[in-house]
Amino acid sequence: MSQYQALKQTCYEANMQLPALGLVLFTFGNASVVDREHQVFAIKPSGVPYATLRPDDIVIVDLEGRVVEGDKRPSSDTKTHALLFKEWPMIGGIVHTHSTYATAWAQAQADIPILGTTHADHLTADVPCAPPMSDELIAGDYEHQTGWQIIQEFEKRGLSPAEVEMILVGNHAPFTWGKTVEKAVYHSAVLEELARLAYLSCTLRPGVARLKDALIKKHYERKHGANSYYGQS
Amino acid sequence: MSQYQALKQTCYEANMQLPALGLVLFTFGNASVVDREHQVFAIKPSGVPYATLRPDDIVIVDLEGRVVEGDKRPSSDTKTHALLFKEWPMIGGIVHTHSTYATAWAQAQADIPILGTTHADHLTADVPCAPPMSDELIAGDYEHQTGWQIIQEFEKRGLSPAEVEMILVGNHAPFTWGKTVEKAVYHSAVLEELARLAYLSCTLRPGVARLKDALIKKHYERKHGANSYYGQS
Amino acid sequence: MSQYQALKQTCYEANMQLPALGLVLFTFGNASVVDREHQVFAIKPSGVPYATLRPDDIVIVDLEGRVVEGDKRPSSDTKTHALLFKEWPMIGGIVHTHSTYATAWAQAQADIPILGTTHADHLTADVPCAPPMSDELIAGDYEHQTGWQIIQEFEKRGLSPAEVEMILVGNHAPFTWGKTVEKAVYHSAVLEELARLAYLSCTLRPGVARLKDALIKKHYERKHGANSYYGQS
Amino acid sequence: MSQYQALKQTCYEANMQLPALGLVLFTFGNASVVDREHQVFAIKPSGVPYATLRPDDIVIVDLEGRVVEGDKRPSSDTKTHALLFKEWPMIGGIVHTHSTYATAWAQAQADIPILGTTHADHLTADVPCAPPMSDELIAGDYEHQTGWQIIQEFEKRGLSPAEVEMILVGNHAPFTWGKTVEKAVYHSAVLEELARLAYLSCTLRPGVARLKDALIKKHYERKHGANSYYGQS
Repeated sequence: MSQYQALKQTCYEANMQLPALGLVLFTFGNASVVDREHQVFAIKPSGVPYATLRPDDIVIVDLEGRVVEGDKRPSSDTKTHALLFKEWPMIGGIVHTHSTYATAWAQAQADIPILGTTHADHLTADVPCAPPMSDELIAGDYEHQTGWQIIQEFEKRGLSPAEVEMILVGNHAPFTWGKTVEKAVYHSAVLEELARLAYLSCTLRPGVARLKDALIKKHYERKHGANSYYGQS
Repeated sequence: MSQYQALKQTCYEANMQLPALGLVLFTFGNASVVDREHQVFAIKPSGVPYATLRPDDIVIVDLEGRVVEGDKRPSSDTKTHALLFKEWPMIGGIVHTHSTYATAWAQAQADIPILGTTHADHLTADVPCAPPMSDELIAGDYEHQTGWQIIQEFEKRGLSPAEVEMILVGNHAPFTWGKTVEKAVYHSAVLEELARLAYLSCTLRPGVARLKDALIKKHYERKHGANSYYGQS
Repeated sequence: MSQYQALKQTCYEANMQLPALGLVLFTFGNASVVDREHQVFAIKPSGVPYATLRPDDIVIVDLEGRVVEGDKRPSSDTKTHALLFKEWPMIGGIVHTHSTYATAWAQAQADIPILGTTHADHLTADVPCAPPMSDELIAGDYEHQTGWQIIQEFEKRGLSPAEVEMILVGNHAPFTWGKTVEKAVYHSAVLEELARLAYLSCTLRPGVARLKDALIKKHYERKHGANSYYGQS
Repeated sequence: MSQYQALKQTCYEANMQLPALGLVLFTFGNASVVDREHQVFAIKPSGVPYATLRPDDIVIVDLEGRVVEGDKRPSSDTKTHALLFKEWPMIGGIVHTHSTYATAWAQAQADIPILGTTHADHLTADVPCAPPMSDELIAGDYEHQTGWQIIQEFEKRGLSPAEVEMILVGNHAPFTWGKTVEKAVYHSAVLEELARLAYLSCTLRPGVARLKDALIKKHYERKHGANSYYGQS
C-alpha cells in the first residue's frame, strides 16, 4: 500500500466537493493537497470525469511537478500548483475551477470590488484579477508562468497569500488556496458567491461605491482578528 | 432536561429551513425565537455548519445578549437580535441571512421598490435599506448598534415593525422578523423573491414606475385587512 | 362520494405540477379545471401550502364564483377564473402563477416581444401585458374586474384566446389557459421560459429586433397549422 | 429483433442526457447518431416527452430523411440532421436544443465572442450565429434549408466542422455535433456554459475585449494540438 494513501484520500474528497458545490462542469477544475514533510503533493489526474474518479486515480507529484506515484497523467495545471506550493510555504491546498460568476469577472479582466460585509468577512481587499501574461511567456512554459503571474501580482499589489486566499487569472478563471485543502475548497465556493453578489450589485447600480474602510476592518477582525468572536474557537 | 428544550427545538427547525429554502451558504445566517415569559431567546451557535447542527447546540440568551444556557458561543449577531426583541415586544422570531438578491440590493445601498402585487401582498412600502452607520458606531459595540441602526431607520421613516417585517442593512444583508419564527423564515424567503423580481424588472426597464397606490392598498388589504379574504381563517 | 371526485383529482394533480415545475413559491399560484356539463369548476383552496394539499381540499365553484362543494374557502382569484370560464367557452383549464421572469415583465408593464422560434412555436404574437386597471375598478369587485381586464385587452388587440393562451396582468403576474388544465400548466412553464429568454436577449442587446413574419408563420404552422408535422398525431 | 437495436440504444441514451444536463424543457430538443456503413441515422421521435421515451421509440431514417424503421414520426428537424450527416462525413452525431443562454444569443442574432480560456479550450473562433434565411427559403423546404444555412455559414467564414463543432441558427437555437453523439451532447453542454459566461461578462463590461490570439492558440493546442497534454491519452 502507498505511503500516500491518506494524502490521496484527502485530495479525492476535496475534488469531489467541487461538483457537489456546483463549482465545476465536466472536468473543468482540480484540487491539490501538499505533504510538506515529503515535499510532494496530491492532485487530480487530467481530464478524468468526477463521476468515475477514484482515490487511487490521484497522482503524487513533487514540487517541480514531476510524477512521483500514479498511473495517470496529472492535471494539465500541475505546474501552477507546484510553483505556488514551492513559493508559498504557508499554504496546504489549492483549488482551481471555472466557476461561472468568478470566471465571468476574469473574462471581463476586472477585480471583484469589495461591496459588502459578506466579502469583508473573508478578505479586506478587492479580489485581484491578474492581467494576461505576455505572448512570450504564453508560448513558453505556460502553466509554470501562470504560477509566476499569480505570485507577481500579489507582490505588485503588496498582498499576502495568508490573508488574501484567492485570485482571478485574467481571461482564464479563479485559483484559491488555504492552510488546508478543505479551506481552499471553501474559498472557491465563497469566491463564486462574492462574484455573483458583485455582479448583481454592479449591474443594478453601475458605479456602486466600495465598502467603507471602517466596515471592512470591523467584519474582518470579528472573524479573523486577535479578538475575533466568530465561530467556536 | 432543560426547561428550554421546546424553545431550542423550534429554533433548530427554523434554522434548518434556511438552507432548505436556499437562503444561506455555509454558515451565513441565523434564526432566533423569543420566550417572552422568561425574557430569553434561543439562537444558533456561531459558525456551526447546518449539516452538523443539532437542537442541543442552540444557545439560550437573555435580552442583554448574555448566555443563559448552552455550551457553545452564540451567533456573532446575537446583540442585534437581543435589541430587536427588547425594543419590539410584538415580534416572536428574527432571521438574518445573506441571501443573494437581497444582499445585492443591500450592497447597492438601495431600497427595493414596490413594483408589483407580489410585493404588495406582503408590505405596502419599499423594503427599506438602512444606510451604513458612522465610523464611531462601527468601532464601538457594533452588533448592538446594528440593532439601533434598524430601529432608528424605522422611526425615521415612520414604519411599524408590525407591518413592515423586513429591512436591508446597507452594505451588509437582510434581517426579517415576525410574530413567530416560522413567519420570520417565511419573510426571508419572500424578501429574496421580491429582491429577485425587482432586480429583473429594474435591469430590464431602468426607471420602471412604482406600483400605484390603489393596487398597493387593494392587495395588502385582501390579505391582511379587516375584511381580508385570503387564506382559510 | 362526491360526483366531482375525478374533477377534484385532475385539479389537484395540475396544482401539484406548479411547484414541481418551479413555477410557484409557497402558495403564490393556482390551477382550475372546468366541467362544462355541470357549469362548475374545481380550484385550489386559498392559502393552503402545496406540501399539505390533498384532493379533498379542492373547492367546487359555479361560474359566478359561488362555492358548490368543499369545506375550504376557494382561491382569492376565483372570480377571475369564473369570468374567463364563462366568457371563453373554448377553454378547459386556467393557471395563475407569480413565476419569476414572467412576473418581472409584468412589473415592467411590458409585452414580451417575439424574438425567436421557441416563442413562435407556441404563439404568433408578443405576449400581451394588460395595463393596470383604473382606481375605481380596483376599489370595486377587483378579481371580477381582473377577468374583464384580460378579456378586454384581448378584444382591444384583436387576439383570440384559442390562439394566444397567455397574458401578463400589468404589475401583477401571468395567467395562462388551454383546452385542458394540463395544457394550461404547460403554457405557464413555456411562458416562464419565453420570459427568461427574452429577458436575456433584451439585456444583452437592448433594442433587439422582433422575429420576422415569415419565421413566425412557418414555426407556428408546422406545429399548429392544417398541415402540421410536429408531434405524433 | 432490429439490426439497428444498438444504434437506437445509443441514440436513446444521448437523448436522455439532454434533460439530465438541464439543456431541454419538455420536448424542445433532439439527438441523432449516424451509421455510416448502412447510410442511416437514428433520431428522436417528434414531440415525445423524455419522461416516457423508450429505446424502441427511436426512428431510423436514411440520409434523405425518409423513415427506414420505426412506428413513430421522426423529429420535425430530421431533414436538418440528414443534410448535415450527408454533407459532413466526419461527424457521427448531432444535437439540437433550445438551451437558455445559447438561445438568448441566437435571438440576439449575435456571435458568442471568445472571451476566455474556457472557450479556447474547445474552439478558437467565436461561436458563429447564422443570419435568418430569406423568406423564399423559409416558405420552401424549411428544415432542409436550415441545414444549408448552417453549411453555407461555415463555408462563408472558412470554418471547418471538424474544428468548430457548434453553431447558433439566428432567431432559432443551437446545433452541435461531434465524432460521436456523446461528443455532440458534450458540446451542447459546453456551448450553454460558454453562452452563459459570455452573457455575464458582456453585461458586466459592455465592449469587453476578445481573448488575445496567443492565449487562444495555447489553450486549444494543449487540449487538441499535436503535442496536447490534456487528458489521459
